[in-house]
Amino acid sequence: MRQKPIVILGSTGSIGRSTLEVIEHHGDRFRVIGLSAGRNIDLLREQIARFRPLAVAVQREEDAHAVRTFTNGQTKVLSGEDGLIELATHPEAEIVMSALVGFAGLVPTYRAILAGKDIALANKETLVIGGELIMQAVHDMGVRLLPVDSEHSAILQCLQGENPASVERLLLTASGGPFRTATADQLAAATCDEALKHPTWSMGSKITIDSATLMNKGLEVIEAHWLFGLPPERIAVVIHPQSIIHSMVEFADGSVKAQLGVPDMKLPIQYALFFPERPRAPFKRLDIAALRQMTFHEPDGDRFRCLPLAYRALKIGGTAPAVLNAANEVAVQLFLDRRISFPAIADIIEDELDAHAPMSSHTMVDLVRIDRATRESVLQQFSAVS
Amino acid sequence: MRQKPIVILGSTGSIGRSTLEVIEHHGDRFRVIGLSAGRNIDLLREQIARFRPLAVAVQREEDAHAVRTFTNGQTKVLSGEDGLIELATHPEAEIVMSALVGFAGLVPTYRAILAGKDIALANKETLVIGGELIMQAVHDMGVRLLPVDSEHSAILQCLQGENPASVERLLLTASGGPFRTATADQLAAATCDEALKHPTWSMGSKITIDSATLMNKGLEVIEAHWLFGLPPERIAVVIHPQSIIHSMVEFADGSVKAQLGVPDMKLPIQYALFFPERPRAPFKRLDIAALRQMTFHEPDGDRFRCLPLAYRALKIGGTAPAVLNAANEVAVQLFLDRRISFPAIADIIEDELDAHAPMSSHTMVDLVRIDRATRESVLQQFSAVS
Repeated sequence: MRQKPIVILGSTGSIGRSTLEVIEHHGDRFRVIGLSAGRNIDLLREQIARFRPLAVAVQREEDAHAVRTFTNGQTKVLSGEDGLIELATHPEAEIVMSALVGFAGLVPTYRAILAGKDIALANKETLVIGGELIMQAVHDMGVRLLPVDSEHSAILQCLQGENPASVERLLLTASGGPFRTATADQLAAATCDEALKHPTWSMGSKITIDSATLMNKGLEVIEAHWLFGLPPERIAVVIHPQSIIHSMVEFADGSVKAQLGVPDMKLPIQYALFFPERPRAPFKRLDIAALRQMTFHEPDGDRFRCLPLAYRALKIGGTAPAVLNAANEVAVQLFLDRRISFPAIADIIEDELDAHAPMSSHTMVDLVRIDRATRESVLQQFSAVS
Repeated sequence: MRQKPIVILGSTGSIGRSTLEVIEHHGDRFRVIGLSAGRNIDLLREQIARFRPLAVAVQREEDAHAVRTFTNGQTKVLSGEDGLIELATHPEAEIVMSALVGFAGLVPTYRAILAGKDIALANKETLVIGGELIMQAVHDMGVRLLPVDSEHSAILQCLQGENPASVERLLLTASGGPFRTATADQLAAATCDEALKHPTWSMGSKITIDSATLMNKGLEVIEAHWLFGLPPERIAVVIHPQSIIHSMVEFADGSVKAQLGVPDMKLPIQYALFFPERPRAPFKRLDIAALRQMTFHEPDGDRFRCLPLAYRALKIGGTAPAVLNAANEVAVQLFLDRRISFPAIADIIEDELDAHAPMSSHTMVDLVRIDRATRESVLQQFSAVS
């Protein structure tokens, strides 16, 4: 069988590693031609030895230099943002797994689309920040944009065989994170270590903090808007602590379809890579009789202000979601660095949204500029305060 | 818009009435050209006045005579089994709603298929008894057979856009009925009035007793086997007292899709009539945040022996399910007549299955003969005992 050439942006992260596991399990279906890593050069070295890609990209040129010492010239070693873009647009690639974290994923993913690559999208910021431009490019280039987030994968699965015009509402489920039952006082005193203990999903630190603030769900609402073309008022969030139902779709006749599974990202990763096929896989099975109890409740926008802030940014539209995302990325890093409190994350985002005059018409250059300006604004205020 | 001509077999029953409600709501989409009733002539009279069908069929000729006095010759009035068949094969009909109760639905539905009509199937006995012959006729005639049972409708919805080869398992949910938590002693003393109090669905008396014994779910397992082509070991039953998830499908990759909704038969009726469209409908919506808790547990085959008996009949195959169904129909009637205890229903069925030498190759005439013979056998034994 012909092997589909794939590039993995962010191969040493959680999604990247799981993607390589899925690919290894179906050894004859994909050929890994490109890998990119941030600073985890040891793991990248192992991955190069195992998959022998045509090219790799690392963040820093000094790391690229080190990598070249053990690749013997068989693998082209790139660095920096230009390196990432060269990798993402590699002429032999047919599909790109976009699994970088945060804003860094936007431009390489955009360039991959413009180069005609199908995209498996784990980097939700790509659509949060650049939704309009990205969807236009997907349409113009006629490529596939397949979501890897478990929620959007669930929705895509529920939409198969359905007329898009009959969709009434999307229902994104959220675990509620580690602070689901915390009081406002407990949230004010929440530590970084507590926030990093996610009850059901094992993920990177940025997304784990986003889960604790519910910003992760807010970003997913914006992502769902672009992927499935529904307005914010028809995208709802429901807290479901067991993370068994990964999301739901309500149709015009009142029927609701849901996708369920164990919380393992390998399932949505495989679904995106093989769509619309469902090859047999060794993932752990959901034990239906053992489900016993699934619970659901509405999210509390007073305690978790990041979720209403995301809806607000989506309703404003234009460049507002780019501000939301940039402010959130900086704020989360400040929280991870133990420099601000947990509730300060939402404060920072709200201040930036309040201060922003949104542009309705914008280019990718505008988005990059607004991202930088927002980051600088937050850091500046923060320096002044501390 | 052209109106699709429809015949409703069993128009005065619970499914028949709901079907007419759905049709009235979408007034421009269907034309009711035929109705059939058992003995509820008053309601049939109202339905004739409202829908002005070309033909109606009633059970007894004396009722037909009475009906003729108020139809003024505008509606042809038929009676008996021949009348039902004439109605089911009416040359102008394009789709037949098969909503008769029990064995009586088999032959008219079969004849409608042979006459090239699409079928909306609410009469599960049609497939339980005649599955092999029915599916062969559906295939030969190239007609559509669309399930109306909420469970099979849920499965059909979950299968849309999916490759049938990727289906691993069907999971039929069951409310567990009014005796879900009853002890064996309580079941031995269960009265007919108690059995008729179904916790979630409002249905006719035969199917309500079948829900209390779990035979209803057993019949659905057999029906699912024929509709979706899976062997019994890949059709599971899970008790879900809230009846919110109507059934689920597990795929080869471990993903599970479920269909949810309020317990209202109008939703699966509309889905069958309009398949694969989903017109907007005024049905009550599922309040997701109000779901709160859904629970699941495995069925207890010791307390509810009818379920394992149905699996046994399906595994034996051939004419065994016809015996299962006939014995059950008589036993349920005896229970409704307060002549036998609740556990005796399973005893009677088990005895008949034990005594039956199954035919692997059979015709519709064989099935009718075996149905009659089984009924006589049960009634004879029962007369001897009482």
